[in-house]
Amino acid sequence: MKKRLFTPGPTPIPERVMLRMAEPIIHHRSPEFGEIMKRVGRNLKYVFQTEHPVLTLTCSGTGAMEATFVSLFSPGDTIIAVNGGKFGERWVKMPRSLGLNVAEIKVPWGKAVQREQILDAIQNNPKVKAVYLIHSETSTGTATDVKEIARVIREKSPALVCVDGITAIGAHELRFDEWGIDVCVAGSQKGLMIPPGLSFVALSRRAVAAMESSTLPKFYFDLRKALASFEKHDTPWTPAVSLIIGLDAALEMITAEGIENVWARHRRLSGALRSGIDAIGLKLFSESPSFAVTPVWVPQGVEWKALNKALKIDNGITIAGGQEDYAGKIFRISHLGYYDDLDMIAVVGALERALVAQKYPFEIGAGLSAAQNALLVGEPSTIDQV
Amino acid sequence: MKKRLFTPGPTPIPERVMLRMAEPIIHHRSPEFGEIMKRVGRNLKYVFQTEHPVLTLTCSGTGAMEATFVSLFSPGDTIIAVNGGKFGERWVKMPRSLGLNVAEIKVPWGKAVQREQILDAIQNNPKVKAVYLIHSETSTGTATDVKEIARVIREKSPALVCVDGITAIGAHELRFDEWGIDVCVAGSQKGLMIPPGLSFVALSRRAVAAMESSTLPKFYFDLRKALASFEKHDTPWTPAVSLIIGLDAALEMITAEGIENVWARHRRLSGALRSGIDAIGLKLFSESPSFAVTPVWVPQGVEWKALNKALKIDNGITIAGGQEDYAGKIFRISHLGYYDDLDMIAVVGALERALVAQKYPFEIGAGLSAAQNALLVGEPSTIDQV
Repeated sequence: MKKRLFTPGPTPIPERVMLRMAEPIIHHRSPEFGEIMKRVGRNLKYVFQTEHPVLTLTCSGTGAMEATFVSLFSPGDTIIAVNGGKFGERWVKMPRSLGLNVAEIKVPWGKAVQREQILDAIQNNPKVKAVYLIHSETSTGTATDVKEIARVIREKSPALVCVDGITAIGAHELRFDEWGIDVCVAGSQKGLMIPPGLSFVALSRRAVAAMESSTLPKFYFDLRKALASFEKHDTPWTPAVSLIIGLDAALEMITAEGIENVWARHRRLSGALRSGIDAIGLKLFSESPSFAVTPVWVPQGVEWKALNKALKIDNGITIAGGQEDYAGKIFRISHLGYYDDLDMIAVVGALERALVAQKYPFEIGAGLSAAQNALLVGEPSTIDQV
Repeated sequence: MKKRLFTPGPTPIPERVMLRMAEPIIHHRSPEFGEIMKRVGRNLKYVFQTEHPVLTLTCSGTGAMEATFVSLFSPGDTIIAVNGGKFGERWVKMPRSLGLNVAEIKVPWGKAVQREQILDAIQNNPKVKAVYLIHSETSTGTATDVKEIARVIREKSPALVCVDGITAIGAHELRFDEWGIDVCVAGSQKGLMIPPGLSFVALSRRAVAAMESSTLPKFYFDLRKALASFEKHDTPWTPAVSLIIGLDAALEMITAEGIENVWARHRRLSGALRSGIDAIGLKLFSESPSFAVTPVWVPQGVEWKALNKALKIDNGITIAGGQEDYAGKIFRISHLGYYDDLDMIAVVGALERALVAQKYPFEIGAGLSAAQNALLVGEPSTIDQV
């Protein structure tokens, strides 16, 4: 059976990227690889909309988040972190493990943090060194208004604005320089359309300055080392060469499509999916929907395991379940990265078929029709125009 | 021109491994991937010759070394580390950066550490928690007698025996359990024949016990988390899925060849290469030659840059130069991983041709003839019998 992946990382790898990664490997200290690193560095800046360095690390997104904590701060420093899901929870636990003082803003799953909560936290923690936001929380499919919240923070506090953009980069508009962001982290297996194993950190001038006085112990994740190498189109340690070669090909596709078109495509596709789900009669989970991943309540009378089996075994579709308290209660369909209109039609079609098999009552074709209508109202997808 | 890679990481990727990695990606929390992790875990144990866990981390070898320091020790703990090259130097600097007290054994480049030096260091540091050895130092192509030195340490001290096996695993005999080793680290882009981006840590029962009392700050590199996941054929963070799929295919090749045959092949190939180099009249650098990489003095009257250009541009051969003080003074030819007899013939042939172009005086064909003779005395290569 034909397999289709709709998970929020790994996301599907474009065929041309797969084939580039399958070419014979080259050495990472060769002029050929230096050229690739140079081009990748330039194109990553474009994706993050920044003139500042975007470093490439060999680790998953969790490693890059750790790199920001250990490279920018000192023991006992206070940071504010928003916890509205599984990853928010991790970005509270991790800095605490590393010796930082974390003022946690708890947000119910499925809701976005509000500017007032950020303002209160800043007022209660006048010495705060940084505020950590999640642009798109993968576990809850919930987006934060990073532009507005960054503006508020910059207005009220010298704290660094740090963004987990792991699931958002390539799906949501992000203008690193214009919005006054100081740190933004991304992962390879998300909107960048390559396998997991790389992560990225963009650093503003203020963030680079903060690294100078940081005293937390570090070595592999020392961003000063990565920054010094970046200027020479190099990395301090042996990088994941084949993944960087794939990244080069993927960034070529993104730059050809245009980052604004990429953002618009994700907005359109996610909107169409939500229309389809709504027309089937299912309930969306998030109050502030991410354009990367859409969580949906498992409807009454349907078992998640049976529904998942029907999707996977009968339709070849892999989606993600709910996490922690929401395991079995919600499911998540991703549309992050290499997806187009007909992928959305296919996944709504599969969902309808799986629900029919579960004897869930709804008008067959209603989801498809709604998705199709939503898609035809917007601009045509740009991904295949590359 | 046909390209041939003779660098000590990345090493050439077998075609079947490249093709496996180019297949559509799967999700890391799927039963299919769990099956792969299970098989990979079992085959890694075989490669390390251990019944104990061998953890897979998404990072380069340097990251895995850091994981051992932060997961096993506490601030101020003393370790002994042998520094006989660029990597030995790194394993002194890194634990110091992380808050450990390091008693350094300095060894001249190209020489192996002696048991007496280890004994002295243990005597001078009675509270030592671990001794770090490098099985094959990549920068100097020098092998350490890990079996004998591990025996001596175990006889005299409760210190953990920790081995950087990054360039040695798959090239040199290593019997983790039988030799009483506690920690051994390996990298993916070496004898395991896949691209860089993964690293591995084998842990004895004593090492696992040491993790319980370790207080160094850690999160991404917390081996307790990796160990808990390993038991469930899982990883704590998103792993480099495509590299693990490649690893699965590469380990299949290694197990089919048989680890003892793999070791024997590396011994034979490196011996034949040394014979060829000697017959050309070049001088070998190391007094204790590694079976993974062979460093050679750049002969008088020859410029390294010109020689390298002749190898690379005229013959398609990529080798490695010398590092730090030995840049321009030595070059290094690797035979680690996916190499067979005829690869050694080819590289000696290319070296002869590059030396002819540099007007270096020697009997043309002497190197080839010596290598051929050395190869034909031994057993035939087993790599293609898979």
